[in-house]
Amino acid sequence: MKIIITLLTFFLAFNVFSQNDEEMLKEIFNTSMNSSNSYELLDYLSNEIGGRLSGSLNAERAVKWGEKELNNLGFNKVWLQELMVPKWIRGPKEFALIETQPGVTFNVDVCALGGSVATPSVGIKANVVEVKSFEELKKLGKGNIDGKIVFFNRPMQSNLISTFQAYGEAVSQRTNGAAEAVKYGAIGVIVRSMGLRLDDNPHTGTMSYGNLPESKKIPAAAISTNAAEKLSDLLIINPKLKFLLRQQCKQYNDVISHNVIAEIKGSEYPDEIILIGGHLDSWDLGDGSHDDGAGIVQSMDVLNIFNKINYVPKRTIRVVLFMNEENGTRGAKKYSEVSKKNNLNHIFALESDAGGFSPRGFSFTSNLKNFKRILSWKKLFEPYLIHSFLLGGSGADIAPLKNGNNVLAGLRPDSQRYFDYHHTSIDTFDAINKRELELGAFAMTSLVYLFDKYGIVK
Amino acid sequence: MKIIITLLTFFLAFNVFSQNDEEMLKEIFNTSMNSSNSYELLDYLSNEIGGRLSGSLNAERAVKWGEKELNNLGFNKVWLQELMVPKWIRGPKEFALIETQPGVTFNVDVCALGGSVATPSVGIKANVVEVKSFEELKKLGKGNIDGKIVFFNRPMQSNLISTFQAYGEAVSQRTNGAAEAVKYGAIGVIVRSMGLRLDDNPHTGTMSYGNLPESKKIPAAAISTNAAEKLSDLLIINPKLKFLLRQQCKQYNDVISHNVIAEIKGSEYPDEIILIGGHLDSWDLGDGSHDDGAGIVQSMDVLNIFNKINYVPKRTIRVVLFMNEENGTRGAKKYSEVSKKNNLNHIFALESDAGGFSPRGFSFTSNLKNFKRILSWKKLFEPYLIHSFLLGGSGADIAPLKNGNNVLAGLRPDSQRYFDYHHTSIDTFDAINKRELELGAFAMTSLVYLFDKYGIVK
Repeated sequence: MKIIITLLTFFLAFNVFSQNDEEMLKEIFNTSMNSSNSYELLDYLSNEIGGRLSGSLNAERAVKWGEKELNNLGFNKVWLQELMVPKWIRGPKEFALIETQPGVTFNVDVCALGGSVATPSVGIKANVVEVKSFEELKKLGKGNIDGKIVFFNRPMQSNLISTFQAYGEAVSQRTNGAAEAVKYGAIGVIVRSMGLRLDDNPHTGTMSYGNLPESKKIPAAAISTNAAEKLSDLLIINPKLKFLLRQQCKQYNDVISHNVIAEIKGSEYPDEIILIGGHLDSWDLGDGSHDDGAGIVQSMDVLNIFNKINYVPKRTIRVVLFMNEENGTRGAKKYSEVSKKNNLNHIFALESDAGGFSPRGFSFTSNLKNFKRILSWKKLFEPYLIHSFLLGGSGADIAPLKNGNNVLAGLRPDSQRYFDYHHTSIDTFDAINKRELELGAFAMTSLVYLFDKYGIVK
Repeated sequence: MKIIITLLTFFLAFNVFSQNDEEMLKEIFNTSMNSSNSYELLDYLSNEIGGRLSGSLNAERAVKWGEKELNNLGFNKVWLQELMVPKWIRGPKEFALIETQPGVTFNVDVCALGGSVATPSVGIKANVVEVKSFEELKKLGKGNIDGKIVFFNRPMQSNLISTFQAYGEAVSQRTNGAAEAVKYGAIGVIVRSMGLRLDDNPHTGTMSYGNLPESKKIPAAAISTNAAEKLSDLLIINPKLKFLLRQQCKQYNDVISHNVIAEIKGSEYPDEIILIGGHLDSWDLGDGSHDDGAGIVQSMDVLNIFNKINYVPKRTIRVVLFMNEENGTRGAKKYSEVSKKNNLNHIFALESDAGGFSPRGFSFTSNLKNFKRILSWKKLFEPYLIHSFLLGGSGADIAPLKNGNNVLAGLRPDSQRYFDYHHTSIDTFDAINKRELELGAFAMTSLVYLFDKYGIVK
């Protein structure tokens, strides 16, 4: 009997919401779908500003735009939080070809990885060693690698429902490939693009040399998945083929940039902060509509929707447009550092940085007592098919705010198409569907509403 | 206590599946995502055959292709089921303009509705009356309508999570608009396209004149949502503006066509049939990739996946490629008619005809005892985020098979983008994502597997 009661308690007893909340979600839904301005905001950010890598002129334009738009929304206070960001410039379009024998060449689509050094101006040209893992690299050793270009070609796994998981299992090739390959004398690395589809779009993204001195750094580039397949096939026919890579990217000294922060003071619990955010910077190849323009405008839309339904938050709402998520997360570091110094109490933080696709639910970083309550809210989201609530993971910009008591969350849109666009030249506004973007804003506003109303379990 | 036990029973007691099923779904998933051939099949159907309206040469090409591909899959038996289908031809591209005053004109994007008559070869030109509903039309009456063109401009509702519901609430304007307007002396109708997005693509689709004699029929066209907005705005400024419409479509006599049917006999219960299908015909403007090429290749893929995992069905599996869903559902009628005559026992039928997008779940037409069991299977699909199981609705082609004992189901993909493509020139192969298509095939194969293993509750 005790078991039965316990089970019943689990299933039935702790619905921390009321019918009023169902109605509120409906009102938020209607407002999102009928009078959101997220799509128009994103149109401007994507098409009038465009790609906005940290340290670039466009990134500063985006800061000014964000400040202006947040002021338009009627926040009590909007300010810029200064920080230093890396400045890396791609330079002229990269060039690469496969030479199977003198005079027989195939052009391939590549792009420098963010943070990579340049090749000499004539490029590098060398034999290629294909590997699927760092273990394989190690096994081959200096004897087989020295003086060559290492080609990391482990594809993202198709048979994972979360493409982010597939990304997580493959991305070390990009982030650490150069640092690993240089140990064995490689003169450059080319990395299969982090995408699941076979296409011609190379995917950029951040990489690191660790503590390697400047003189030891080797150039690192991504190659499109189609070209990776081609190179792999050609290597079987002719293991002695040569690869030519030319890129003229450069790392400059750090420059000043900013997080953009907006705040509306809570009417009852002004010391309890609820943060909503995304990152304002993007890679330079596309216009960053999915990564992470969508998250920026959805975050802004939360207050827009609250305004439209005349909802006065009990807790302090902050919208933060983080700078430099892509290649340094310096914005996140600065924000959490200042927050800690000022003893700010972030009870809940929500990030949207997984694309502007149809939302499927949220992931949470939470203790169990709060997660139990959160699970009871699932029912509220089920009519909108946004009812996948998982434990584990929030967002790169808010992760440093974790303190064991508070709750962090990430919006989880459908991930199937995300890595078709991520860090490529086709991450552009035309790949955004207005309804899907608005559904994300609805989901975020609803979750913020619930945390504002109920707070967290202490 | 009784209530508690009842509740517990509801929550816990009737999981009709085993751990083995979880493993089987995993295997089906891996096979779908790693070695499906649905995308390649769809590439051929969409790009090498293309749009395939009933009665067209392309529709017959599609029949031959379907027959060949089903034979390739190793069915015991593949055959064509003859039927008569309507033959309607669009003719040269339609033309329309708004004339606000003599010499001041705006071209607008229109297309004839399927089944419409032509205008005179010079077109029709008349004043326009905008209405949102048949009630409004009736209220205006003959005095305001006679000799004019009626413009049906009620948009699909944005604030419904299911865009199919929004479609259902707006589509009578298209299907019955002409028959209604002609009662009050209208000389033509233009209908706001059945889409949620503002764009320039007119959406075709079927319409009916009811029992109207040939001489009374008036031309009916769809106008793009952007043009509908423009026309509506211009009508406010100038209610006397004129609209010119020219279309040369024509209805011919019915012609012979075919359903394509493939069968593999059940090893244990050969008399219990499980049907999987979609419709082979499409509208003529695009290549019908989402509507319903996706459903066709996903249905085929079920057997492909069964073959690859060496699964031998206990019940008879039929794949049916229905002809003429779009403008007559004659294939569905013929199939159910022949099935009834032969006393065939379809215990389960599954249709995919809602696009090739990321699957969210299924809708079911089922009695409660079967639906209860089906609900217990939800858990199996939850790890794949395909866990929205709703009661109500299956598919137009299988609906006639309903008998009160059996179960009918429809695959329910994410619907947010569907009506951006539906019945337009942009319903083409490039709008299909390979993973999303394969996830649908996985979901369908898994559900078919469960019905094959467990049958239905009698």
